[in-house]
This record gives sequence, structure tokens and C-alpha cells, in this order.
Amino acid sequence: MSLSVNRRQEGVQIIHPIPSFAECFPGSEKVYREVEHGRHRLRVPFRRVHLSNGEHLDLYDTTGPQGCDPHRGLPRPRSEWIAEREARGERNHSQMHFARRGEITPEMAFVAAREGVEPEFVRAEVAAGRAVIPANRRHPELEPVIIGRAFATKINANIGNSATHSSIEEEVEKLQWAIRWGADTVMDLSTGANIHETREWILRNSPVPIGTVPIYQALERVGGDPAKLNLEDFLEVLVEQAEQGVDYFTIHAGVLLRHVPLTAGRLTGIVSRGGSLMAAWCLAHHEENFLYTGFERICEVMKEYDVTFSLGDGLRPGSLHDANDEAQFAELEALGELTRIAWEHDVQVMIEGPGHVPLDKVKENVDRELAACFEAPFYTLGPIVTDVAPGYDHITSAIGAAHIGWHGTAMLCYVTPKEHLGLPDRDDVKQGVIAYRIAAHAADLAKGLPRAREWDDALSRARFEFRWEDQFNLSLDPVTARAFHDATLPAESAKTAHFCSMCGPKFCSMRITEDVRRYAAERGLDEGEAVREGLAAKAAEFAAAGGRLYLPEGAGGGEPV
Amino acid sequence: MSLSVNRRQEGVQIIHPIPSFAECFPGSEKVYREVEHGRHRLRVPFRRVHLSNGEHLDLYDTTGPQGCDPHRGLPRPRSEWIAEREARGERNHSQMHFARRGEITPEMAFVAAREGVEPEFVRAEVAAGRAVIPANRRHPELEPVIIGRAFATKINANIGNSATHSSIEEEVEKLQWAIRWGADTVMDLSTGANIHETREWILRNSPVPIGTVPIYQALERVGGDPAKLNLEDFLEVLVEQAEQGVDYFTIHAGVLLRHVPLTAGRLTGIVSRGGSLMAAWCLAHHEENFLYTGFERICEVMKEYDVTFSLGDGLRPGSLHDANDEAQFAELEALGELTRIAWEHDVQVMIEGPGHVPLDKVKENVDRELAACFEAPFYTLGPIVTDVAPGYDHITSAIGAAHIGWHGTAMLCYVTPKEHLGLPDRDDVKQGVIAYRIAAHAADLAKGLPRAREWDDALSRARFEFRWEDQFNLSLDPVTARAFHDATLPAESAKTAHFCSMCGPKFCSMRITEDVRRYAAERGLDEGEAVREGLAAKAAEFAAAGGRLYLPEGAGGGEPV
Repeated sequence: MSLSVNRRQEGVQIIHPIPSFAECFPGSEKVYREVEHGRHRLRVPFRRVHLSNGEHLDLYDTTGPQGCDPHRGLPRPRSEWIAEREARGERNHSQMHFARRGEITPEMAFVAAREGVEPEFVRAEVAAGRAVIPANRRHPELEPVIIGRAFATKINANIGNSATHSSIEEEVEKLQWAIRWGADTVMDLSTGANIHETREWILRNSPVPIGTVPIYQALERVGGDPAKLNLEDFLEVLVEQAEQGVDYFTIHAGVLLRHVPLTAGRLTGIVSRGGSLMAAWCLAHHEENFLYTGFERICEVMKEYDVTFSLGDGLRPGSLHDANDEAQFAELEALGELTRIAWEHDVQVMIEGPGHVPLDKVKENVDRELAACFEAPFYTLGPIVTDVAPGYDHITSAIGAAHIGWHGTAMLCYVTPKEHLGLPDRDDVKQGVIAYRIAAHAADLAKGLPRAREWDDALSRARFEFRWEDQFNLSLDPVTARAFHDATLPAESAKTAHFCSMCGPKFCSMRITEDVRRYAAERGLDEGEAVREGLAAKAAEFAAAGGRLYLPEGAGGGEPV
Repeated sequence: MSLSVNRRQEGVQIIHPIPSFAECFPGSEKVYREVEHGRHRLRVPFRRVHLSNGEHLDLYDTTGPQGCDPHRGLPRPRSEWIAEREARGERNHSQMHFARRGEITPEMAFVAAREGVEPEFVRAEVAAGRAVIPANRRHPELEPVIIGRAFATKINANIGNSATHSSIEEEVEKLQWAIRWGADTVMDLSTGANIHETREWILRNSPVPIGTVPIYQALERVGGDPAKLNLEDFLEVLVEQAEQGVDYFTIHAGVLLRHVPLTAGRLTGIVSRGGSLMAAWCLAHHEENFLYTGFERICEVMKEYDVTFSLGDGLRPGSLHDANDEAQFAELEALGELTRIAWEHDVQVMIEGPGHVPLDKVKENVDRELAACFEAPFYTLGPIVTDVAPGYDHITSAIGAAHIGWHGTAMLCYVTPKEHLGLPDRDDVKQGVIAYRIAAHAADLAKGLPRAREWDDALSRARFEFRWEDQFNLSLDPVTARAFHDATLPAESAKTAHFCSMCGPKFCSMRITEDVRRYAAERGLDEGEAVREGLAAKAAEFAAAGGRLYLPEGAGGGEPV
């Protein structure tokens, strides 16, 4: 299918190649850990950072296979796994369905190896609905990922054209660029022309789960008139997109007729596009949302392909003023009802959340979601914690995202610096993804995820030992870290110098601490108590030895500066 | 004094003029609210944002007088206030001293008007030690600012040359640039040559409190050998800097001999420069820190000028691994002792805090500080919540800063993108200050500060009503917000268009909500219950009227796009 699309598009070139993996991550190597699972051999990707002291650190890696021709698409590691299940005549292909039957799928084994946990734990979390593995059986290119609060916090990047801007090539490039920096899933929010083709290109080149908002395409089918939206057209769109391999659908089935008036007193009304469409539909017909009344039929499509629900928060607040209001929480209750129905079909569910929330109201969002939706994974957009900084909403929202992630949100939808202002370009996508990798990792550290701090400790050790190259290479964005260092001290020698550029060669506190430790070690002092006992006796020696913790300027550790 | 310095420096030119206030804040005007206080007329600055609907919003303003010749320095609004107190023979010039005597000083009245609270409340908070007004009587150029958790959260920006880089002109420019974007105080951390002259230029051009770390200059006096540091030289440095008008001193008097061994098992030892100097001194002499033993003599200098203590956290953690450890909290206890002593002298005190702390350990820092230091204002560096993102530490730390500010930190010391890597340039200073203005405002919103949300609501209202120019002008960085918008939709007409560029003209959820509301209003529907009751009857009408919530493409609100 992708090839036919590509043939139709053959005049189109990807004109701005993005830097390679090696250019983005010097000192890193893509490695695959091989895992036996039944008759399958799973290849689980990591980014291996080689350190100058001979050690290495393996980091979670979202970047996917490198160097593939986008016109041919990626390799298809899941083909065999899926074929095996299809051959035995399964009708419900949901990971939840297999999990509840006690079956550990290759997908579960894969994410277990990726997260460093037992496959049985993965199975149990998926069976309980506390985690999802969005993995459409028509998306064999996927490297499976698990989304649940017992696992590493995930992030999503949105891409997609719009009526005013963007092209298919740009969207595929944005996908590749987003996963390069760490996006765990990508949503294609295209609303303009060629959305089928754009989606096909994206899916055939995506190692990460792809999400969509099918109501956008459904609206185009009915000529852009929300009152003409209807379940039959919507189901057709679902099947079309499920056939292509979309892994999760945002569906605004929780916006109910009775909720709409609750938004009338808001400062910023309904800001979700899907939410406002469904509200408009409800008002026009004075009928209940057809996505709600037709939910069981939607579930039939979902389980046939294993598309995961991302139940949309159509009434999320669009400003701090509207946070945590009656409309928002009324919809959340409806999403809980729908979760229960989806689970009766063994269909996987995530719950979407806000949006714009002051810090003191963030935790309530998680607590209520876990209670109302039976611990289904929460998937929030930010939240932004102040409205006053358009142009910097990757930061305003990373603050909220880190906080909501800590309290149990499983996936954080990124916000770019262009939020509220315009469409993100390549650099905006990178800035958004990096801000969210920071937020997600901060959340994992705060949650006390067992191996989260290995990375921080490795980098801090490199920093303390003045292994500058290791510090750069271990960082989220090595090239930027190195460039910032070089802006102050460009000489190659400065990267092996035993001082940091902030303080200069004579005045570095890390150097002083090293000297203090060396002093203690040379004189046979051990740590802790021993130091305490030996101090008095040794103080005189230290003074006699010159008591100098600095080298004379220019003699910095043997390295010319 | 500044003039003589300037004459000595007269060959020096400020060569890179920064953009003007008007260029940075289009649509804004500097206004002064006049406040009578005894025989003084105080002029309290605000940034007034004029809106297109005829309204305006006054924001807290740190930018200081504009258009002054830096060689002549700023006007001196405090001269009369200070002269009056000197004339009556005061010996202790501390704001705390006056507050405890029941006197509301012009400085207190000024900050009360600035914060929108009663002067008596300010006096009571200063008297109790819960807030400080750093205001050296030798700094008449100051526009007083209050630092305490009952008030708006403040931010500090560090500037200062170093052995490897920077110049006096650059430092003055950084000061002006930092306060342009919202720094409430500035620390001059210079360690290289000409630190006296640099400081003089900065003070004579600073409307905000200036802090320093006097141990840096004391070290230069003793030839760079920490073992030769001593109280007499240190006191001379204090007097020299106090005479110049420095408003607060970071003094690492809480690093005690018995604390030093507690750091031996750390991943990153002692990372504070002042802290490592004092630790080295303690080890060299096997004596107690002379800043601790000589603390009462230091207090004598502080009260003569009204310099505020910023008791340094010399043992703050330098990595997440070392956060909240025994060394850190042992020092905090010592800082509590010193607070009590300072308060016996009516000397104002802030307490410095970390640094590098995972989110789940942030609140404990505030709670312990408030308990150990009797609610003296807490002043933290970040904290950074993950170590893995050098190059983005303005973001990693803004996350921690917002969180710690919410829980009661009174002032947040900024971190720039160059932290751990190099010296910040002009853009880094701006990025750091803006990230921290975001964090501080997020904290104020979360604390529920009475007027904090006015700003967010004004911007959100402008956003919802498609008043693009107002949205830009109300934002923290209007020029950047406008530039981001124009990158997608550069036409002037797009700024009055009734859609946002993210979704395009046909597909804007804000437009849909507006249509829904208009529909309700036109048909005489009121909010809430009325809507609920009227819905059934009106649905048919809506459908009959076409039920169209979109305009045909190209007819967008009358504006060509």
C-alpha cells in the first residue's frame, strides 16, 4: 500500500535531510539487545553511550532504524508476530485481550526488555488496564512501547499539516526529527488535503505508535459541516485509518449534551477542536453525542485491529481561569463510563487530560482521573501553568508536565514554543521534544523509577571528574552542550581541562573538592568517621604542605589553556 | 564616587546598546504611581499595558529609569529618606530595626504600593524576619523590593566577569538587560580584575538590590590562598563593598569543620565556590570557620549599612545523587543558629538553598528551612530536577524553581542555558530571566496570590477574543510572541483575523465556541440553567438556520487571508 502511495507521489522529494543519528549523538551507537521469545528473536533498541573510561551506558531509544529509504518504509519486525496470531484465527487482536487470557505476546516481551522489567509484570499491567501497548496489527514497522504509570513516562509529539501550511515531506521529516530527540509516540493531526497519503507515509516510516483524531477526516467527508457528522461516516473513517495501521484514536465520546451549558461561563469556552465539534453537533441536533451512543460499535473496530482508545478531553480548560471546573470533571466521569465499556471488549484505553492548570490544581487532575477511570493511563497536554508566556509554552508546560508526570500521568503530550501562535517548524519540534524529555525524566526520578537515576549519576560523575566529552555525549542534546561549552572555551584542550568554564582555571569549586579528597586519600584517610578522627592530626601537615588548593594561573593541571 | 570611577574609565564605551524599553514592550508604557508617605512623595513604577479595547493592565516593573547616561548613573530616589534617618543619628540602619520599632519606612511604603498590600503588613513581615527589604543606605538609586513568601516570588540574575572572560561594559549591559526582562535582584559574582570598578558601575546603574559574595574579593587580597583567609581582611572587604552600596552579602558562615567529612561520600563533593573555600580553610587550620566564630563582628557591619545576610549554602548538593543529604541539612541547622544571632542585631536575613534536587525532595527543603531558620526567606538556586540536560538547565531548573516557589521559597536564583558549560551571553541572560519569571509567576498562581491571575486572565481573554495585538503586548516577551505568530501568518491582516494560525481559518475551536455562544446569545439564552432548559426547543431552530459554525473558506470574518 505504501508503495502505491509513493508511486503517486514520486515527483516529491524529501528536500531537507535531517542530520544523522551519528551527527546528533557523537559517541553513541545504536545497539540491539536480542531477546528470545518463543520462536521469535526480538531485537530491542538502545542508544549506547561509550565513555572515555571504558564504561558505557545504555539509554532508552526511540530513534528507530536508520538510513532507510522513506519511499520504501521501515523493516517490519512485527510481521511474523502478527501473522502467527492471524493464522490461529484470532478475532480480537487487542493486547489487553491476550493479556487477560494470560498470554505474554512478543510485544509485551519487547517492552519488558525495553523497560527492564519482567514480562509477566507487563502482562499484568496491560490486563488490569493500567498500561497500554498501542500496536495496530496493520503497523508491523512498530517497535512496541508501553504507556502506564509503572513504566518510564512517555511523551508524544504532534505533527500534521493544516489548511494554511505544511507538506507531506515536511511531515515525514518532522516524524523522524521528533523520534530522533525522544518522542515515544507521534500524533498526526493533519486536517488539510492529502491526509490519507500523509498518514500512509508517516505510518510506513514510523517505529513509534501513531495516533490520530479521526473526527477531522470525518468532518471533511461531510463537507465541513459539523451538524452533518454521523456515526456511519465516522466508522468508515475509523476502518480506513485502522487499515492503514493507526495505533490509537483520540475520540471525543465524553462530551455530552448536558455538559455543553457548563462551559457557557468559561473565560475561554471550549478549546479542543474535537470537543467543540461534538458540542456543536449536540446543540444542532439536541441529541446525545453519537460517539457516546455508538461507542460499542466503535469498540468493534478497535478490537479488530487493536487500536487503543485515547478518550479525548473535549472540555479541557483553555486557560487557568477555567481549570478543574465542573465541565471538565463532568466529562471525566463520562470517560470513566466509556472506559468500563471498552474494557468489556478488551479494548485498550488511555484518558486524555488538560491543558491549562495552575500548579496547585495539577495533582487533583491525576487523582480524579485514576479514581473516575479505574487507573487507565492518563495522557495530558502539558499542562501549561501560566498563560502569560506565549512563545515559551514549551517551558510553561514542561513545568506542569513534570509535575503531573510525577503524580502518575503516563504520557505527556508536548507543547512547542509556537503553541498558541503558529505552526511548529523543525527547531520548534526539537525544542518541544527536549523540554518534554526533561519533564518525563524529572517525573521518573521523582517517582523513584529504579534505573532512572543511573543516567543522572553517570553524567554527574563525568562532570565531577572533568570528563567533558563524556558529559557532552551523555546529555540529552550533546551537540548543543558542546557548542555552549565551546562558545566560552573553544580550544580542544579545554575539553580535557580540570576546571569548568564558569569559574575559570583558578577558581573552580569542583577542583577544590577534588583537591580536598586527594589530600585525604594521599594521607590514608578514609571516608566519614576516619576523616573526622584524623582531621586534627592532619591539619598541621596540610598547612605545612602549603595548604594550596589552587594551581598558579596558567599551570592548570598540565593542560595549556 | 561613581564619577571618579567613570573618569578613570572614560576611554571605555558601552558598545552594544541594548534595545529600548519601547522596543521590547510595544504597547506598554512606564508609569509611576505617586504615594504620599509623610513628607515624601514616592514614585512607584509599573509597566502599563494598553489594550485595544481601551482597558489597561499595570504589571510589576523592574526595568528602572530609562535613558540615563550610564556614566552618570541613575537618579537617587532614596537620598532624602536616608538623609533623614542619618540626620536623626541612627546607628542601626536595618529595615528590620525600624520595623521592630514600629516605624513604617518609605522603603516599606514603597514595596507595599508595589505589591498592592498594606504598609503595616509589610512592616510586620519585616519585623518578624519573614521578609527582607535589601536596601543599603549607600544605594540611593534603589527602587526597594521585598522578598518574602507572603509577597510576589522574586528572581535573581547572576552576572560577573571571570578569569577567562567578560568586561565591565558587558556587565553593566547584562545588568540592564536582566532587569529589562524582570530580574528583581542581581548578584555581581565577579572574580577577576577590576572587581571594585565593575561593582561601582553596576551599583550606580542599578535600581534593583545588588548582592555579592565578598569571599571572592577577600581571596584575591590574600593572593588566592584559601588558607590565608582571615576575619580582619574579610571585614575590610565587607566595609569596602558596603560603602559602595551592596545590598546583600552571601556569606558561607554555616560550613562548619564537623560538616566537611560529611561530604566525602558524595558523588559531586562540594560544588559551592564559597563553600569549598571555607571547607579548605577549616581543613587547613583545623579550626572552626572564622565567618562562624566572627559572626557577631560581621553583624556590626551589616547593621551599620543595612546589608542583608544571604546565608550561603556552601554544602548544597551538586547532583541529584547528593540532594537532601546529611551535610546539606547539617549546614541548614547552623544557618538557623546564625539567623537567630543576626536577628538579635536586627539584621535582615535570607537563607540560600539548593541546587540539584529531584522533584519529590523539593518540598522537604522548604519545610526544613522554614523550621530550622524560623521562617527567614528562602532563596534557592533552581533547583535543577535532572542532571541529564546541560544546555537546557534553564528549563530543568525552572521546573524545580516553580515547585519550590509554590511551597514557599521567596526568591529564585536563575540558571541560564549555559549553566555547567560556559558563561552566559546576552541572550542566555534573557532566556534565564524569562524562564524564571515563568517559574515565579507559576508559583504565585499556585500560592493563590490575590492579584496574580489578573495577568493570565487578561491575556486569555485577549486570546479568546482574537485580540492578537493585545495577546502579544500582554506577554512576557511580546516581540518573540509576535515573531512566532508572523512566522506562520505574516500578513498584518492576520493579526485581526478571527482564527488562530495553528488550526487555520476553517478549523478554529475558539471560533466554534464563539459561534456557540453567539448562537445562544442571539436567541436570548442565558448561561447555565437557562441554557439547559431552553436547549430542546432551540435545537430545531439551530438546524433550520443552517447549523453552520464555519464560514465558507476565504470569507473569514471579513478579513482577507
